[in-house]
Amino acid sequence: MLEFFTNPMSRGQIVRWMLEEVGAPYEERIIQYGPEMKGPEYTAINPMGKVPAIRHDGKVVTEVAAICAYLADAFPEKGLGPTPEDRHDYYRWMFFAAGPVEQAVSMNSAGIVPTEEQSRSFGFGSYDKVVDVLETLLSDRDYVCGARFSAADVYLGSQIVWGLQFETLPKRDAFAAYAGRLTGRDPFRKAKARDMALIAEMEAAKAQ
Amino acid sequence: MLEFFTNPMSRGQIVRWMLEEVGAPYEERIIQYGPEMKGPEYTAINPMGKVPAIRHDGKVVTEVAAICAYLADAFPEKGLGPTPEDRHDYYRWMFFAAGPVEQAVSMNSAGIVPTEEQSRSFGFGSYDKVVDVLETLLSDRDYVCGARFSAADVYLGSQIVWGLQFETLPKRDAFAAYAGRLTGRDPFRKAKARDMALIAEMEAAKAQ
Ligand SMILES: N[C@@H](CCC(=O)N[C@@H](CS)C(=O)NCC(=O)O)C(=O)O
Ligand SMILES: N[C@@H](CCC(=O)N[C@@H](CS)C(=O)NCC(=O)O)C(=O)O
Repeated sequence: MLEFFTNPMSRGQIVRWMLEEVGAPYEERIIQYGPEMKGPEYTAINPMGKVPAIRHDGKVVTEVAAICAYLADAFPEKGLGPTPEDRHDYYRWMFFAAGPVEQAVSMNSAGIVPTEEQSRSFGFGSYDKVVDVLETLLSDRDYVCGARFSAADVYLGSQIVWGLQFETLPKRDAFAAYAGRLTGRDPFRKAKARDMALIAEMEAAKAQ
Repeated sequence: MLEFFTNPMSRGQIVRWMLEEVGAPYEERIIQYGPEMKGPEYTAINPMGKVPAIRHDGKVVTEVAAICAYLADAFPEKGLGPTPEDRHDYYRWMFFAAGPVEQAVSMNSAGIVPTEEQSRSFGFGSYDKVVDVLETLLSDRDYVCGARFSAADVYLGSQIVWGLQFETLPKRDAFAAYAGRLTGRDPFRKAKARDMALIAEMEAAKAQ
């Protein structure tokens, strides 16, 4: 039994894509921003009062990256988790995405530029450095683990796809090519279509 | 063959602790801050120009959390990685530590307080929320995965231990008790002693 707590306008889109990659049936629970998300029922699931979250056989997972890693391991037959040959890249770039990339993009979008001294102690160094490291990485390989698509691409890849869409990352050829490989996948398209339909429903309900 | 690139005054202390938990022999490579860390030789290992990093059988891993997760999987006989019963907690709190905790503590130390709107989009919400969530978590269990110590405790636990030491986290009983359980471990003490000795050597060399 797999429950998915989300809002269509959220990072929950990443988890829905991962759920489609895994192909496991799930029950969707739409959580509205505001009182519902901060209320006692939902904060019993995620005390941060944020979406997304999943509950699988009674076990709760929060944090998009953790949910991707969890689902990859829980459905090993899909081959989306780490292997002895590539787990160094898998973990390295999954955590690079969850830490430095997330932080660099948030700070940059907020107009916060670390001083040189802060760059030494902040785990992400600087936005420009993170962008360059990502560009070099993605110039060199098709997927995080080389030729093989994995859960690390769902997570890191979503940051690239969103970054290009919302212009929180600069346009670079390597980013566009990687995003193209990912957004062409059926599970990506299927997940996207569902969230777009939900957003349209919500807009229509508001307009009434 | 396991190489460990570090500086004793860095987050490399966390990785050294993990290496001691794993008990695998390793070769230490001390990288000095400044030109050496930003130079071509070391940035070929970590293009971020930051420590720590490891190279294991020719495979490079950077990012402290990734190195902990990698070593746990590479040395499964130590029982420090995720199990089918507790991987939901293992990944959840490992990524919570790498993302929200790291970001909340960095921002807070830099005196940056997100607006309410930023708190909704920033993955960490707010420093106070992250601290409360951590306190609730650690009031409820001895280790991230319940009764079992794992690599998630090396990583999350180091953030608690350092946070108390540098006062970047508030004093809370649950934090102090958890830190006490961790710092009493032999591998923690052994790692700490080595880094302290290296720092003393570096200070002595400087004083000459
Ligand atoms: N670090 C979290 C971030 C989650 C997050 O910030 N979600 C946003 C939507 S994308 C949210 O729920 N914001 C509502 C709020 O904080 O009130 C993750 O990776 O899951
Ligand atoms: N996100 C990285 C952070 C690494 C980091 O920021 N290391 C600091 C020392 S604790 C560093 O090497 N700073 C030197 C610099 O940036 O010049 C990780 O988890 O490994």
